[in-house]
Amino acid sequence: MADSNDDIIVTAHLMADAARAAILPYFRAGDLQSDNKRQIGFDPVTEADRAAERAMRAVLAQRRPGDAIIGEEYGDSAGSSGLSWILDPIDGTRAFISGATSWGVLIGLADASGLIYGIIDQPYIGERFEGGLGVSRLTGPRGEQALRVRRGVALDQATLMTTFPEVGTADEGAAFRRVAAQVRLTRYGLDCYAYALLALGQIDLVIEAGLQPYDIAGPLAVVQAAGGIVTDWQGGSAEAGGRVIAAASPEIHAAALDLLRG
Amino acid sequence: MADSNDDIIVTAHLMADAARAAILPYFRAGDLQSDNKRQIGFDPVTEADRAAERAMRAVLAQRRPGDAIIGEEYGDSAGSSGLSWILDPIDGTRAFISGATSWGVLIGLADASGLIYGIIDQPYIGERFEGGLGVSRLTGPRGEQALRVRRGVALDQATLMTTFPEVGTADEGAAFRRVAAQVRLTRYGLDCYAYALLALGQIDLVIEAGLQPYDIAGPLAVVQAAGGIVTDWQGGSAEAGGRVIAAASPEIHAAALDLLRG
Repeated sequence: MADSNDDIIVTAHLMADAARAAILPYFRAGDLQSDNKRQIGFDPVTEADRAAERAMRAVLAQRRPGDAIIGEEYGDSAGSSGLSWILDPIDGTRAFISGATSWGVLIGLADASGLIYGIIDQPYIGERFEGGLGVSRLTGPRGEQALRVRRGVALDQATLMTTFPEVGTADEGAAFRRVAAQVRLTRYGLDCYAYALLALGQIDLVIEAGLQPYDIAGPLAVVQAAGGIVTDWQGGSAEAGGRVIAAASPEIHAAALDLLRG
Repeated sequence: MADSNDDIIVTAHLMADAARAAILPYFRAGDLQSDNKRQIGFDPVTEADRAAERAMRAVLAQRRPGDAIIGEEYGDSAGSSGLSWILDPIDGTRAFISGATSWGVLIGLADASGLIYGIIDQPYIGERFEGGLGVSRLTGPRGEQALRVRRGVALDQATLMTTFPEVGTADEGAAFRRVAAQVRLTRYGLDCYAYALLALGQIDLVIEAGLQPYDIAGPLAVVQAAGGIVTDWQGGSAEAGGRVIAAASPEIHAAALDLLRG
């Protein structure tokens, strides 16, 4: 099992490396909007997305052909090993096309019990947040450090993040604002990077709605491995996406869930 | 004059280097909130802010003692050269305490004619955006590249950024939303990094309110050197701060100003 876990982790890093190499040439590559106008049908984000997913699938085909794959761009590929890789080659495409750095490559790995390992990779900054199979670490510009959520922060002292101020539907937005009204600081526009900051012990809550399974698989594994709690807004599994809350502590999770339920 | 400009630019880079060294030990340094609770009166952001401004002032004292200084933390120091440095050691303290990377060190330099040079530095990513005195460049993880705004993007295809969704007062927020309703994409939470992305040709508009002069000095010089337009919401000088609009082209600037005026 230790050998098998090592192979999984090595494979995941090779996948993330391959995605970085595939995506970075497209990031901030000239004036993408004007290129888009000149070459009808060329969508640089989709191109980068697809190239990255192909690169990750190529690593799996070579090293672990028996694993199943669920990818945002190329759909599902069946497997025989009981393990499934869940891939979002670029989470945060709006950040990506704006040149911001809150987008990331998301990799999740599930077995019959659920998610067991995940990566949030930010290729431009060169940060890789990773959790599961006994690992919980950030590898980045400062080298390697352990990921660990912070504890003991009350809701009225908490920092909350989400991506869009409207959050989701009108009802979802209203529920979000009930929580936002109680915390010390709310920040927007962070995409998957918000979950990375939660795992890093820098913030206390991430609340989002309308997520796809591939949006949350990697982040969920990273946050859980760092000691955080990730559920849907009813306290159930968040693996299917939809309405998701990630919290640094059981106390803050419970307090925010109460407010979300109204 | 060329020698003098070279000395200014070398000095500015030494200042930014010194600020980086002073700030980075405080960024994501453990659980700052808990530290804060344990050590009453210790505010890590203020400490980092002050240490960085002291470090920049020390560079000026050694290399250019005749220049005036206007700093966020230590106020005004008179000079005799006719040049004034305007310093914001950490713009985006809310991002800083959240571990996000949209904060920056801002340096502006003004003579009797107004701002002539500026820097937006992001120490953690290692990006330095710089403009004025014949220079317009980003030095970062990929080496050096020219900064240049993009042109030819119509308002309905534009990307708009600001820091806080409420923008400022109720009236200011309403004016902002008139512009936001017309653009293709609005993103929040970017702090000074939004101006850097504008200079880099990645976005088209930054609109903010309630700025201090030191919030806008560095960004203004960087955006103007890259070919952009920075004014207040009436089309006048933005050097005093307050309500600021930065635009990639005269056309998009005029269209957004019309909407801001209501």
